[in-house]
Amino acid sequence: MFKLSHYNILKGQKASDGIGIGTVCVYEDEKVRIPEDPILSIEDGLSQFQSGHRQAIEEIDAIYRKAKATLSDEESEIFGAHKMMVEDVEYIEAIEKRIKEHMHPAKAVEEVKAYFVNMFQGLDNAYFRERALDVADVSNRLIRILLGLKEKDISHLPNETIIVAKDLTPSDTMRMEKEKVIGFIIERGGLTSHTAIIARTLGIPAIMGVQDATHHMEDGQTIIIDGQDGWVILNPDEAAKEHYHLLMKTIEEEESMLRAYVGKKAKTLNHMTCSLHANIGSVEDVAVALYYDAEGIGLFRTELLYMGKEQAPSEEEQFIIYKEVAEQMKGKEVTIRTLDVGGDKQIAYLNIQQEENPFLGYRAIRYCLDHQELFKTQLRALIRASAYGNIQIMFPMITAYEELIEAKAMLQEIKEELDRAGIAYNHHMKVGMMIETPASVILADQFAKEVDFFSIGSNDLIQYTMVADRMNTQVQKLYSPYYPAIIRAIHQVAKAAIANHIPVSICGEIASDHKLTNVWLNMGIHKLSVIPSGLLKLKHHICHMHTDNLHMDQLLQANTREEIINLLDK
Amino acid sequence: MFKLSHYNILKGQKASDGIGIGTVCVYEDEKVRIPEDPILSIEDGLSQFQSGHRQAIEEIDAIYRKAKATLSDEESEIFGAHKMMVEDVEYIEAIEKRIKEHMHPAKAVEEVKAYFVNMFQGLDNAYFRERALDVADVSNRLIRILLGLKEKDISHLPNETIIVAKDLTPSDTMRMEKEKVIGFIIERGGLTSHTAIIARTLGIPAIMGVQDATHHMEDGQTIIIDGQDGWVILNPDEAAKEHYHLLMKTIEEEESMLRAYVGKKAKTLNHMTCSLHANIGSVEDVAVALYYDAEGIGLFRTELLYMGKEQAPSEEEQFIIYKEVAEQMKGKEVTIRTLDVGGDKQIAYLNIQQEENPFLGYRAIRYCLDHQELFKTQLRALIRASAYGNIQIMFPMITAYEELIEAKAMLQEIKEELDRAGIAYNHHMKVGMMIETPASVILADQFAKEVDFFSIGSNDLIQYTMVADRMNTQVQKLYSPYYPAIIRAIHQVAKAAIANHIPVSICGEIASDHKLTNVWLNMGIHKLSVIPSGLLKLKHHICHMHTDNLHMDQLLQANTREEIINLLDK
Repeated sequence: MFKLSHYNILKGQKASDGIGIGTVCVYEDEKVRIPEDPILSIEDGLSQFQSGHRQAIEEIDAIYRKAKATLSDEESEIFGAHKMMVEDVEYIEAIEKRIKEHMHPAKAVEEVKAYFVNMFQGLDNAYFRERALDVADVSNRLIRILLGLKEKDISHLPNETIIVAKDLTPSDTMRMEKEKVIGFIIERGGLTSHTAIIARTLGIPAIMGVQDATHHMEDGQTIIIDGQDGWVILNPDEAAKEHYHLLMKTIEEEESMLRAYVGKKAKTLNHMTCSLHANIGSVEDVAVALYYDAEGIGLFRTELLYMGKEQAPSEEEQFIIYKEVAEQMKGKEVTIRTLDVGGDKQIAYLNIQQEENPFLGYRAIRYCLDHQELFKTQLRALIRASAYGNIQIMFPMITAYEELIEAKAMLQEIKEELDRAGIAYNHHMKVGMMIETPASVILADQFAKEVDFFSIGSNDLIQYTMVADRMNTQVQKLYSPYYPAIIRAIHQVAKAAIANHIPVSICGEIASDHKLTNVWLNMGIHKLSVIPSGLLKLKHHICHMHTDNLHMDQLLQANTREEIINLLDK
Repeated sequence: MFKLSHYNILKGQKASDGIGIGTVCVYEDEKVRIPEDPILSIEDGLSQFQSGHRQAIEEIDAIYRKAKATLSDEESEIFGAHKMMVEDVEYIEAIEKRIKEHMHPAKAVEEVKAYFVNMFQGLDNAYFRERALDVADVSNRLIRILLGLKEKDISHLPNETIIVAKDLTPSDTMRMEKEKVIGFIIERGGLTSHTAIIARTLGIPAIMGVQDATHHMEDGQTIIIDGQDGWVILNPDEAAKEHYHLLMKTIEEEESMLRAYVGKKAKTLNHMTCSLHANIGSVEDVAVALYYDAEGIGLFRTELLYMGKEQAPSEEEQFIIYKEVAEQMKGKEVTIRTLDVGGDKQIAYLNIQQEENPFLGYRAIRYCLDHQELFKTQLRALIRASAYGNIQIMFPMITAYEELIEAKAMLQEIKEELDRAGIAYNHHMKVGMMIETPASVILADQFAKEVDFFSIGSNDLIQYTMVADRMNTQVQKLYSPYYPAIIRAIHQVAKAAIANHIPVSICGEIASDHKLTNVWLNMGIHKLSVIPSGLLKLKHHICHMHTDNLHMDQLLQANTREEIINLLDK
C-alpha cells in the first residue's frame, strides 16, 4: 500500500505537468573562489585575461552557431546578445583597468559583472534588466575559464535523466542532451523562468523552488518527479513505483475516456447547453485546441506575437498569423484580443517605464490608445484577416466609456481606408470588450449598448475587485472567486448583457472551475473559454450535471466565502 | 498690467503652499572629481584616509549635538545613524582594503559608497533602503574632506533667502539658518521628500522637481516663488511684484472673510445642512482643526504615531494621545482609523516585504488581522480612551465581510478583558468602516447591517475602481471622481447606508471638491471630512449654494466624464 508519509518528499512549485521515474543528474557549477589578493605583475594579469577572453569568445561562437541551427530565432538571439556583451569595449576596458590596478583578472571580472548587473537592474526598462542576465552569464563563463574550472559535461546523458540544479541558464540548457531528459527539479526560478518554459515545450514535468534540491540528491539516484503535485519522492521503493506507474496508467485511461466526448455537445442532464471555446496564444495552439474539440477560440492573446523581438511585428506578419488562425478554425468563431501589454507582461522595446504598481498602471488599451501607430497596425491586420474566417475583435482593460468609443472610432477609420483601397474584410465583424475592471462592471448596462459581446476576464476582475495582487502570496486568501462580491459582480454583468441581448462569456481561470459551472449557467452565461487541455474535462462535467439545483437568490445574499462554498457543495 | 507670458517662468511640483518674494541662494556642492589613477604609496593613502575619517567623525558629532538640542528625537536620530555608519567597521575595512590595492582614498570611498548604496537599495526592507541615504550622505562628506573641498556656508544667510538646490540632505538643512529662509526650489524630490516636509513645517512655499533650477538662477537674484501654482518667476519687474503683493493681500483678506463663518452652521440656501469634520494626523493638528471650526474629527490617521520610530508605540503611549485628542475635542465626535500601513506607507520595523503592487498588497486591516498583538495594543488604547470623550473606531480597507467580523470579535474580546479588570470605557462607542475597495461597495448593503457608520475613502476607491495608481502620471487621466463609475459607486454606498439607517460620510479629497458638494448632499451624504484649512472655504461654499438644481437621474445615466462635468457646470 502506497502512503506518502513513508517517503522522503521534497516540495516545490508545479511548473510543468507530468510524472516521471528516472535517474538524477545534479548539475552544479564547481565552487568558484575568487582570489582576493592583488597580483604582482600587471602584464601577466592582462595576458592571462586576454587569452581567457579569446577562449570565451570561441565558446560563445560555437554555442551561437549550434543555437542558430537548432533553435528559433528568438531563442538563439540570446547567444547573439552574449557575443555582443563579451566583445563590448566598455566591458573589456573596465576589466583591464582593474587588472592595471593589480587586481586578479577573475576578481576584476567579478567586480565588473557586479557593476553592470547592478546598473542594468537599476534601469527603468525591461530590456536592460534582461541584459543583466547576459552580463552574469558571460562573466561567469570568463571567471570559470580564468580559474581553470571545467564545465560539467551534460552533452551526453543516460536515458531518463532528471536534471537537478540550483538554476539553469540558457547556455546550460543549450548544451544539454535534451532528448534524454524526462524532468527538471530546480532550486530557484518560477513559473515563467526559462527552464519552466523549456519543460512545458518539451512536455515533461518541472518543479521549481525546491529548497536545497542539489544537496538532497546525488548523481545516479532513482527518484520520482510528480509534476501534478509538485513533489519529488527521494526514496521510491517498489510500492511507490507501482503507485506512480498506476497513476500514469490512470491518466492515460482518463485521457481515452475523455476522447469519447470529442464531437459531442456540452449539454447538461436537464438539456442546457454551453459552448466551449479555447484560450490560445499562438498559431501552433490552434491544432491543440482542435484536438480537444474546441468549438471556437474564445481568447487569442496576441502578446506572444510581440514578445522576444527587437521591434513590434509588422502588419503583414500579423495579418498572416490572424488569417492562418481564422482559416484553420474553418468558420468557427475566433475572438482575438488586441495587445494587452503592461502589468506583469513587459515588452522591452515598447519602453514602458517601471511602475510602482504595474497592475494599476499603463497597460493594454491605455497604452494602445496613446500609441496609435502601433495599435492601428494591429487593427488593420485584424480587419484584413476577417475576410478569411469568423474573426471578432476584443478590447482589453476597458475602464472608461471614452476608451471604448475611441477604439471603435479607430476601427471605423481603418475600415474606411480599406474601403477606399478596395481591400476586402468582413463588414459584419463583431467587436466586443473584456469586462475586467470594477468600473466596467458598474457601467456594464451602458457598455452593453456599444459592443457585440462581453467576455469576463476573471483573473483581473478578481484582483481589482478584491484589491489583491494575484501574484502576491501575502494576500492570496482574498484572491478567490468564492467571495460574494465576485459572484455579485459577475451576475451584474450577465444581467446587463442579457437585458441588451448580447452574448457574454468567461475567459479567465474560473471558467474551468467545475464547482462554479452551475453558477455561470444559472446566470445565463452559456459560453466558457478555457485552456485547450481543460476542454474535454469540462464537457464531461457539464454532460453529467443538473442546473436546477442551485439557489441563486441565496447565493446573491450570502455574506461570506464559506457560505458560498457551502451553497455550491450542496 | 501683469501677464504671466511676459516673464521667464520655471515650473515644478507644488510641495508647500505660500508666496514669497526674495533673494536666491544657490546651494550647490563644488564639482567633485574623483581621482582615477592608482596611488604610489599605500601608507600615505591610509594615513590620509584616517585623518579625513577623524575629521568626518568630528563634523558629524558636532551636527548630532546641535540636532539633539534643537530638533525632535526622530529628526536628530538621522545624525545618530550617520555616526554609526561612519564608525562602522565593515565600511572602514572595505575602504582600507581598496586603498591597500593602490586605490586613491576618495575613489575607495566612492566605490564603497556605491557598493553599500546598491546593496541597501536592493534589500526587501524600507529600513535598509533609508540606510542607503545615510551611506551616501556620510560618504560624500568623507570624499569632500579627502579632496580638500569646502562646504558652502549656509549658516549665515541674508534675510528673505530662497534656497535653490539640486537636492538637500538632512545634513544640509541642519546647518542652514532656517529663520532667514522664505522658500525652497529643488530640482529633485517629491511631495514626501525631506525638504518638502521641512517646508510645510516651517509654513513656507516649496516647489520640487524644477528642472535645472540651479543653472537658471544665481546668488543674489530676486525672484518670486509661487507655491500655490508651482511657479518660479525669474525676472519680476515692479508689475509682477505688485501683482504678487496684491495676491498676498487678497489671500489675507479672503482669510479674514472666511473667519466670519466660524461658529456658523454649514447650511445651503434651501436649508439643507452638512456637518463639516477635519482630517488630522496628530495631536498637534487638533488645535488647527478647532481654529478652522471643525465640528468633529472625521478621520484621525494613526499611521504617524507608528512612523519614524524603532518600534511600535506602546498601549500607554497611544492611550495618552487618543485621550488627549478626545479631551481637546470636548465631546465632539472623534473618528479614529486603525493603523493603515502598507501601500505607499511603509514602516520599517513592521517588516512588510517589498511588493510588486503594494497598492494591491498586504496593507491596513489585512496586516493588522495577521499581527494580533500589534492590533490589540491599538484597540485596547482606543477603547480605554473612549472613556474620555466621543471616540469612534473605524477599520480601513475592509474587503471581505469576514475581515469585519474578525475585527469586531477582537474588539469584543478586549472589552470583556477590560470589564474583568474593571477598566472604564464607553460601552456605546460606535464602530464603523471605510468604504474604499470595490468589493465593499458591492456588498455595502450587507456591511451596513454590521457597522454604525460608513466613511467613504475616495482616494483609494477611485484608484481601485478605475484601476489607476493615483501616483502614476501615465494613468492620471483615469484617476478622477468625474467618471460615471465613481458617481454610481458612491451612490450605491449612500443608498445602502440610508436604507439601513446608518450615517455615511466622505473623508477623501473629493469631499473638498466644491463642484461635487451638491452631488453628495443630493445623495444624502451630510457629513464631509476635509483638511482643516479647507473647512471654512467649504462652509462658505455650502452657505451660498442650492441643492435642488441638480438632475440626479441624468447624472446616474451619464456615460462619460464630460457629460458629468457638463451636468455639474449647469
